[in-house]
Amino acid sequence: LTEFDVIRRLQRQFPAIGDDAAMLDGGLLAAADVVVQGVDFTPATPLEDVGWRAVAVNVSDIAAMGGTPTALLVSVVGPPATDVDRLYLGIADACEVYGCTVVGGDLSNGPELVVAVTVLGRADRPVLRSGARAGDGLFVSGALGAAAAAGYGVRPAPPVALGGQLSALGATAMIDISDGLAADLGHLLDASGCGAQITFVPIAAGATEEQAWSGGEDYELLFTLPAGVVPPKGCVQIGEILSDPSVRPPERGGWQHRFP
Amino acid sequence: LTEFDVIRRLQRQFPAIGDDAAMLDGGLLAAADVVVQGVDFTPATPLEDVGWRAVAVNVSDIAAMGGTPTALLVSVVGPPATDVDRLYLGIADACEVYGCTVVGGDLSNGPELVVAVTVLGRADRPVLRSGARAGDGLFVSGALGAAAAAGYGVRPAPPVALGGQLSALGATAMIDISDGLAADLGHLLDASGCGAQITFVPIAAGATEEQAWSGGEDYELLFTLPAGVVPPKGCVQIGEILSDPSVRPPERGGWQHRFP
Repeated sequence: LTEFDVIRRLQRQFPAIGDDAAMLDGGLLAAADVVVQGVDFTPATPLEDVGWRAVAVNVSDIAAMGGTPTALLVSVVGPPATDVDRLYLGIADACEVYGCTVVGGDLSNGPELVVAVTVLGRADRPVLRSGARAGDGLFVSGALGAAAAAGYGVRPAPPVALGGQLSALGATAMIDISDGLAADLGHLLDASGCGAQITFVPIAAGATEEQAWSGGEDYELLFTLPAGVVPPKGCVQIGEILSDPSVRPPERGGWQHRFP
Repeated sequence: LTEFDVIRRLQRQFPAIGDDAAMLDGGLLAAADVVVQGVDFTPATPLEDVGWRAVAVNVSDIAAMGGTPTALLVSVVGPPATDVDRLYLGIADACEVYGCTVVGGDLSNGPELVVAVTVLGRADRPVLRSGARAGDGLFVSGALGAAAAAGYGVRPAPPVALGGQLSALGATAMIDISDGLAADLGHLLDASGCGAQITFVPIAAGATEEQAWSGGEDYELLFTLPAGVVPPKGCVQIGEILSDPSVRPPERGGWQHRFP
């Protein structure tokens, strides 16, 4: 058994690879994201905000599938002096806002704080990245670049309830904007085998156009709707899906770790 | 909101706290365990064995509920030079042996290797720690102390298929022996509000009685069956459940981290 065999075997084992969450039997969704000191936050970040972030980035993956988050498993690895109560305060806040509960987890020791979360959820009609078709309208759930403009110090607030609404409305493709509009639009178009013409990008107050395109961590939803379907209030049409996959907005820098 | 409120709220949020896995809707089980360098393995441990261990300790939690593991989410945090392929080789080996697949996960950077796994599974009739009753027979699935006698350098091999068989046989309570017989028997008796008389403990070849009682990491199953029910081949009766919770085997040292 070579390592190449292993990779091929793992790819067969990942039926939902490339999407925000895995689809399991009975409409069950599952996704996992870690937040790590030195990558996703600094030693100066309040632990309540670290806990919030760990939940928020995970429930965003369920929303991006058109689903509703239900349960979290939270594993915490950190120095023995870590104030786990403060971390859990932020976790509990986010659970209350997003309507899910912690059902399990683990706790162990390590040199730097790692919060590894698995989120479970449900979707009646999961929305993949791959369903966009020529003629669909392309939308975002809000203005972009706010996280970058704020120096990424803010609590991400993904519009989770919107995910299920968009599924019910007939959204054809969806992804959450974690890496930036440029990168995540690329993922959606690659998965759908389409191109896109962009006509307008809503830029958050105080943000630059570059931050709106490439800042990342906005956790707004990027989605497509069949022509004529009106999106919920607050969503903004940014363009249209084209059949030619070579028609794309110009290349831009992708997301970078901010605490190297 | 005080921290005490948070703890109380979290306890309400953990419906299955104190059991090996959480029970969710539709017979779904979920559990999470991390393996961490410096706690669960050393820098000298082959990465294939680290991957195997991360899967084995998780599927053991599903077996201990009388369930069958189905899916894993695997998040890996480590130095950029980590040979993730070798890690995944051990993960893939364990998945093949235990009949489950990796459906998602995450990858990020940190100073020391952390493998955080969530396991999902199913049980028609979950077996809790709390169901032992006076008169039940008390059994283990095999001889104890082997992991300690081997210096913990071996791949744990939990008898996962046995979990479902014992559920079907009518097992009344079950736990996996990860912390050692003394500690895990205590957990089962505490949860069930019972005591136990121990008549015989099977000691693995090369192990001491102390290692059999307190070595830990054997990942055998400790379970109870109603009087007269014959356990599957290989299982050994070690005693009987008593109604008086104060009747216990003598106190012994608990499990200790071996790489401080």
